[in-house]
Amino acid sequence: MFLARVEGNLTATRKHPSLTGWRLIICQPISKDGEAEGVPQVAIDPHGAAMHQRVIISSDGMAARKAVGDEHSPVRWMIIGILDEKGHA
Amino acid sequence: MFLARVEGNLTATRKHPSLTGWRLIICQPISKDGEAEGVPQVAIDPHGAAMHQRVIISSDGMAARKAVGDEHSPVRWMIIGILDEKGHA
Amino acid sequence: MFLARVEGNLTATRKHPSLTGWRLIICQPISKDGEAEGVPQVAIDPHGAAMHQRVIISSDGMAARKAVGDEHSPVRWMIIGILDEKGHA
Amino acid sequence: MFLARVEGNLTATRKHPSLTGWRLIICQPISKDGEAEGVPQVAIDPHGAAMHQRVIISSDGMAARKAVGDEHSPVRWMIIGILDEKGHA
Amino acid sequence: MFLARVEGNLTATRKHPSLTGWRLIICQPISKDGEAEGVPQVAIDPHGAAMHQRVIISSDGMAARKAVGDEHSPVRWMIIGILDEKGHA
Repeated sequence: MFLARVEGNLTATRKHPSLTGWRLIICQPISKDGEAEGVPQVAIDPHGAAMHQRVIISSDGMAARKAVGDEHSPVRWMIIGILDEKGHA
Repeated sequence: MFLARVEGNLTATRKHPSLTGWRLIICQPISKDGEAEGVPQVAIDPHGAAMHQRVIISSDGMAARKAVGDEHSPVRWMIIGILDEKGHA
Repeated sequence: MFLARVEGNLTATRKHPSLTGWRLIICQPISKDGEAEGVPQVAIDPHGAAMHQRVIISSDGMAARKAVGDEHSPVRWMIIGILDEKGHA
Repeated sequence: MFLARVEGNLTATRKHPSLTGWRLIICQPISKDGEAEGVPQVAIDPHGAAMHQRVIISSDGMAARKAVGDEHSPVRWMIIGILDEKGHA
Repeated sequence: MFLARVEGNLTATRKHPSLTGWRLIICQPISKDGEAEGVPQVAIDPHGAAMHQRVIISSDGMAARKAVGDEHSPVRWMIIGILDEKGHA
């Protein structure tokens, strides 16, 4: 599970059918100080994260397949939480 | 799941029999700005991606084994979507 | 399994329900000399590690799902041990 | 699955019994231009790759365990194809 | 599976019960020339490797759980072989 920042989303008309209707989010792993670390991941998002929000992503394929409702889906990465930001109560 | 760019394909006469008939694509993980990030992966391609196209790849072995139709195949990485490119409608 | 140092924790009101009540710890992988190495991981903590303590973390999803008591949880990383520190007997 | 180059093999008298009789190959992941990228992997080789040959390696443990014929083997990485080299028809 | 060098061991009184009685070894992945590459891993050791010995480590959780005799253990990395060193016949 990585701390990551939402950096955009991807549009793909040709894709595995299990991904239809899901936003594909570019998630840049970051340090706790917000610096980019390592390779960006593409994740599905059941929580509705906004651009630049900090999120937690997980590579657990079993949970992601359950989320899309297709046990043969190739999906693996999923946003599993959106961080509370200071000063935005 | 990584955002990646197609950088070529590989020919291997000697290989695991489950890979027969599948193109083996070199996929370079990239940032959203197109810069190379990390180690290239080799993936199978059920979608027909072209050279230099941007794709999404997944390491989900279960889905890849299903794609090749061999539950004992060592295949893991698969192209699962091809990005829509701007200006190419 | 990585040797890591606790560098903070995260608060997320919107998250997968299986994570409710669990602290989400930022764990920075380190060398045996304490230098940061690679990308920080986010892990759950059943052992009660304190800030800056050195811990061992594991990516075993099956054990983590058992810890949270939800077999469909997307949780993967967990603190599995807290190092004994010299001079703190 | 990585594109890699064979860089040597390892001899280990003390090892998991399932590895007996298998060559343990050092495989350096490379770019399509042959440059080293990332950490070398150790893989078993059912195809008989020679020193410096370019190969494809996979981390699929299920297929590797099937190859060695021991469902409790800790083996994970396996050479799954040997690239055809240009000019060697 | 990585080629690695034993760089020390860890003592943790508070830990997952399945790890009781196992040495936790710091294993630094290395190139075939012995240079450090990537992030150190923590592994259990059923073979009795000594300080600075070169070993092969695997991330296969299933085999590691079998080694510790607890199918819910979070253990993943294990030393699976100790290299024969030249000049030590």
